[in-house]
Amino acid sequence: MDFTDTMRQRRAINFFDPDKPVSDEELKGIIETASLAPSGLNLQPWQVIVVRSQEAKEKLMAAASRQTKIIEAPVTLIILADMNGWKAGHPMVEKTWANLLDLGYMKPDQRGWFEKGAQKLYGTQEKSLAFAVKNAAFFSMALMLAAKDAGLDSHPMDGFDPEAVRKAFDIPENFFIPLLIAIGHFNDRSMLMPPKWRKSYGEVVHATF
Amino acid sequence: MDFTDTMRQRRAINFFDPDKPVSDEELKGIIETASLAPSGLNLQPWQVIVVRSQEAKEKLMAAASRQTKIIEAPVTLIILADMNGWKAGHPMVEKTWANLLDLGYMKPDQRGWFEKGAQKLYGTQEKSLAFAVKNAAFFSMALMLAAKDAGLDSHPMDGFDPEAVRKAFDIPENFFIPLLIAIGHFNDRSMLMPPKWRKSYGEVVHATF
Repeated sequence: MDFTDTMRQRRAINFFDPDKPVSDEELKGIIETASLAPSGLNLQPWQVIVVRSQEAKEKLMAAASRQTKIIEAPVTLIILADMNGWKAGHPMVEKTWANLLDLGYMKPDQRGWFEKGAQKLYGTQEKSLAFAVKNAAFFSMALMLAAKDAGLDSHPMDGFDPEAVRKAFDIPENFFIPLLIAIGHFNDRSMLMPPKWRKSYGEVVHATF
Repeated sequence: MDFTDTMRQRRAINFFDPDKPVSDEELKGIIETASLAPSGLNLQPWQVIVVRSQEAKEKLMAAASRQTKIIEAPVTLIILADMNGWKAGHPMVEKTWANLLDLGYMKPDQRGWFEKGAQKLYGTQEKSLAFAVKNAAFFSMALMLAAKDAGLDSHPMDGFDPEAVRKAFDIPENFFIPLLIAIGHFNDRSMLMPPKWRKSYGEVVHATF
């Protein structure tokens, strides 16, 4: 699908058709495409919890203002943003440093420089949170577009109690939960509401130098 | 351009061709496409500072570990994430509430419900930061893809001193600065490094329920 069409046709869908499934292959495909998103130092501090069973959907709905789209959509992803995802010793961080070394982005004697850089850029509570959320949001945006490109619809949700979700799904404290994304097919027996306004170019540009 | 190709061909480019400009029309086009990104309650808490002049580039480079790509790229955007972008009285928030009312997303007596909802979801320092960064990152991801689709390259940068950037460009305290994005054309006299690793599907999925 054309990129601009994908951007234009992606809408936050409120009504999913519960009779139209999302296969494991479809889900794997959109997650793999979204994984091409960039991240700071390529650290990819994102994971997802896949909510598919009726029991899990009901638990999630109870922690998310009882939004029925969680029941109707075949899948909802709980997006996890790893605030530890820049720390030495973390398996994914070690894998990233090893890969940067392999590919020549990092020289053998630069490991300390990369570690110190990550500490400086991300090593406060505020900075770790911003690091994790920013990169998980790059992944999430790419995922919503990849879903549209695969003929699926999505809905990014903020309306949930993060501590209730954490408890219900036993999510470790190093993960911030920036959003949930419901994925499925638009229920064409319901009405698609008109698109909401967007800022003009002049409203987006704060200043030019 | 095909969506999947756009995802695959977007790379963080280290060397920009200083002789290949980015027109104002091109920049406007990619910002307008990126503005189609979703946001919590459609609040769009993002803005950009456009850095184009030699003087401004030098100021920005001085605050960004002297990364020469800032000089070489025709444009670098300072991405701003508005931590106040959910508060009643903010012009863009008021515009959003008015639009939701116009389109029927909000009933005339629901304004208080929306205000209280935003307060509950975003009304702590941590939550305001996550709200602003998440949505500004949706916009940024869309913008990097829109650039690729328009035949341009980009580079998202974390390596800068946010307080030095704030001071140099007189950025108000309500804005967190999640990243800079350099935009231009790849310098084909330099070598494009091989793509870095990405997590497999199994590494992205934390759990399935």
